[in-house]
Amino acid sequence: MDMKQATTDLIEKIRATSPLVHNITNFVVMNSSANILLAVGASPVMAHSMDEVEEMTGLADALVLNIGTLQSDWVESMILAGKAANRKGIPVVLDPVGSGATKFRTDTVKRILEEIQISVLRGNASEIFSLASSDIRTRGVDSSLTVTPELLSDANELALKLRCILAISGPEDIVTDGQQLFRIANGHPLMTKVTGLGCGLSAVTAAFCARAGGGDLVSATAAALGYYGLCGEVAFRISNQPGGFFVAFVDALYTLSSEEINNSLKVYPA
Amino acid sequence: MDMKQATTDLIEKIRATSPLVHNITNFVVMNSSANILLAVGASPVMAHSMDEVEEMTGLADALVLNIGTLQSDWVESMILAGKAANRKGIPVVLDPVGSGATKFRTDTVKRILEEIQISVLRGNASEIFSLASSDIRTRGVDSSLTVTPELLSDANELALKLRCILAISGPEDIVTDGQQLFRIANGHPLMTKVTGLGCGLSAVTAAFCARAGGGDLVSATAAALGYYGLCGEVAFRISNQPGGFFVAFVDALYTLSSEEINNSLKVYPA
Amino acid sequence: MDMKQATTDLIEKIRATSPLVHNITNFVVMNSSANILLAVGASPVMAHSMDEVEEMTGLADALVLNIGTLQSDWVESMILAGKAANRKGIPVVLDPVGSGATKFRTDTVKRILEEIQISVLRGNASEIFSLASSDIRTRGVDSSLTVTPELLSDANELALKLRCILAISGPEDIVTDGQQLFRIANGHPLMTKVTGLGCGLSAVTAAFCARAGGGDLVSATAAALGYYGLCGEVAFRISNQPGGFFVAFVDALYTLSSEEINNSLKVYPA
Repeated sequence: MDMKQATTDLIEKIRATSPLVHNITNFVVMNSSANILLAVGASPVMAHSMDEVEEMTGLADALVLNIGTLQSDWVESMILAGKAANRKGIPVVLDPVGSGATKFRTDTVKRILEEIQISVLRGNASEIFSLASSDIRTRGVDSSLTVTPELLSDANELALKLRCILAISGPEDIVTDGQQLFRIANGHPLMTKVTGLGCGLSAVTAAFCARAGGGDLVSATAAALGYYGLCGEVAFRISNQPGGFFVAFVDALYTLSSEEINNSLKVYPA
Repeated sequence: MDMKQATTDLIEKIRATSPLVHNITNFVVMNSSANILLAVGASPVMAHSMDEVEEMTGLADALVLNIGTLQSDWVESMILAGKAANRKGIPVVLDPVGSGATKFRTDTVKRILEEIQISVLRGNASEIFSLASSDIRTRGVDSSLTVTPELLSDANELALKLRCILAISGPEDIVTDGQQLFRIANGHPLMTKVTGLGCGLSAVTAAFCARAGGGDLVSATAAALGYYGLCGEVAFRISNQPGGFFVAFVDALYTLSSEEINNSLKVYPA
Repeated sequence: MDMKQATTDLIEKIRATSPLVHNITNFVVMNSSANILLAVGASPVMAHSMDEVEEMTGLADALVLNIGTLQSDWVESMILAGKAANRKGIPVVLDPVGSGATKFRTDTVKRILEEIQISVLRGNASEIFSLASSDIRTRGVDSSLTVTPELLSDANELALKLRCILAISGPEDIVTDGQQLFRIANGHPLMTKVTGLGCGLSAVTAAFCARAGGGDLVSATAAALGYYGLCGEVAFRISNQPGGFFVAFVDALYTLSSEEINNSLKVYPA
């Protein structure tokens, strides 16, 4: 599969058809995630009340569940929306913000993974491996965050155990469902100095999955990570400071051309 | 009435006297609405707890009720604040975000319209006409979103039925209370690619209505829509991409001159 | 004490060690406070549920309590988190947004001050003096907001009564614990035209206090206010309009050099 062509096709499909992405997400990033989704060409909607989440998911092309600024009644809404998404057969992306930091967050992610069929679990290595058994967890999170053969094998094992795609963000990203594996070398360290860019990536992943050709969500997820990381590189050329960088990043999401994708996308099957 | 002069007078009055606008609004736009209000010269305050909304509305010059990211306890607060605003006689702007998309939102807008005297209902055509009887609704929302004579007549009829001013945003905007009608030809399509600009317009409309000369809220609403749309045009000249556009838009709200209003405001009585 | 050197040392320590600042803050500023903390080099986390606040504070180097967009269940979380911070011995900064405007907010600040040992209370004069007895309050808030000898004496008296550091923002800022007093002449009026910059300062104060040398929180607070105000001055040189100004301000927080601190910091022991 030509990932450059696949990525170009996906972003063009998103821009042409504006998939509706329903977000139950945290207070910090609601504004930035909405703007990020609009910039890639998707349509965002935010709704979290049990009084309407099922109906809203019923209108959507993809669902994002994000556990930042979590509170217990929102968890019930996430479960309701997730079940509605599963019934409808649309992709569900779960962002386990802060999983591993508090028991409440870790337990919530585990409960969601039990009750909902998640399509993609996207986070950083420590969040993702907080869901692994203790022997995997110990090996999995290398302090240098480099991608070792052990990390790849642990990620594959965990993906099979959780029966979903893992999208692990780091200096180099990994996407795997336990069988098909991609490494993504796009991105820029300044992306970690702006709040909500990880959460925004989860939302963009949902938009890409909503338009995945032939249901190939692994490739669509890898394409989303490559596209997003490349926009970070383009933005850094405009501004090397976080305020200006975020503005340039949103602009890059809106304008990135197929030529830039062809020249600079670094998404590799492994 | 010279709408260019009226708009200039209103924005100067807002800048000179900083009306306090109390917002019960959604999580996505709290930050952007506050910045938009500050940029036009108003003073924003956000407060939603039943423990304080009546007292806060008692301090305010206008109230904004916005049903995005709705949850049931907030509806009760909106009712309390709305009644306090009615007792005090200050303008109330209702933004029916997503009305028509879910039953919860549509029902909430209907309940607010029954219990509160709303001054201005501002939204897009599908939101506004979700509140009409089914025969109006069917005719009302033209898929091309052009302003047909039928749309104008439906809008007038609905305004009379709801006993409030309708401000219908679209490629061309309409403001009507069923008797006095304005068409506004300012604005730019890129405004739909930044989240919260519709919600921000509702807040700015509240600021304009708070300073309406002689209680003429129809003209004040039309002036708000013209001013806001013109700032979108000015911003687009600075940046044609959504990140940079939003920055330029806030700057335009802060700086737009009477000369630009005189040259380019397109607010027409019809 | 050389405040220029002290400020340079503190910001370098923050950038090198990324203190984790736990924020229970309002919906308007969650995104901006997170970005402001990242820009100075700190690590933000937002969490407000009673299910996790104690555990999250247990991981943190400082705690920020901010009562904007207040609701009653959040007050209980603030008390829980504050007690956890007191047990752990980390600094707690309280931002009394809107204290004095509604009884709910004033009462909440008083309750927090009774139940929690606050390190720094940071707000504007009317918020801070809403907590004083009525005779202080009457004298305290001078409508011209200039720092009179009476204001200084009232501030000292109130700091001793509340047993915490007061950081009073205004055209000129004051920091005092009733014994040690600083006046800070940095800052720019345009900072009041962007929402959340006061709240962001409270968060930055927490980051500075988290790295205070020898537990000298009064100097660390004064350094935070000087650094922050100076970044406002630098930003204004880049943009004199609120949209561009905020972008430039975040960039200045990220890049301000020791040379600029040496040339332009205006933090004076008084």
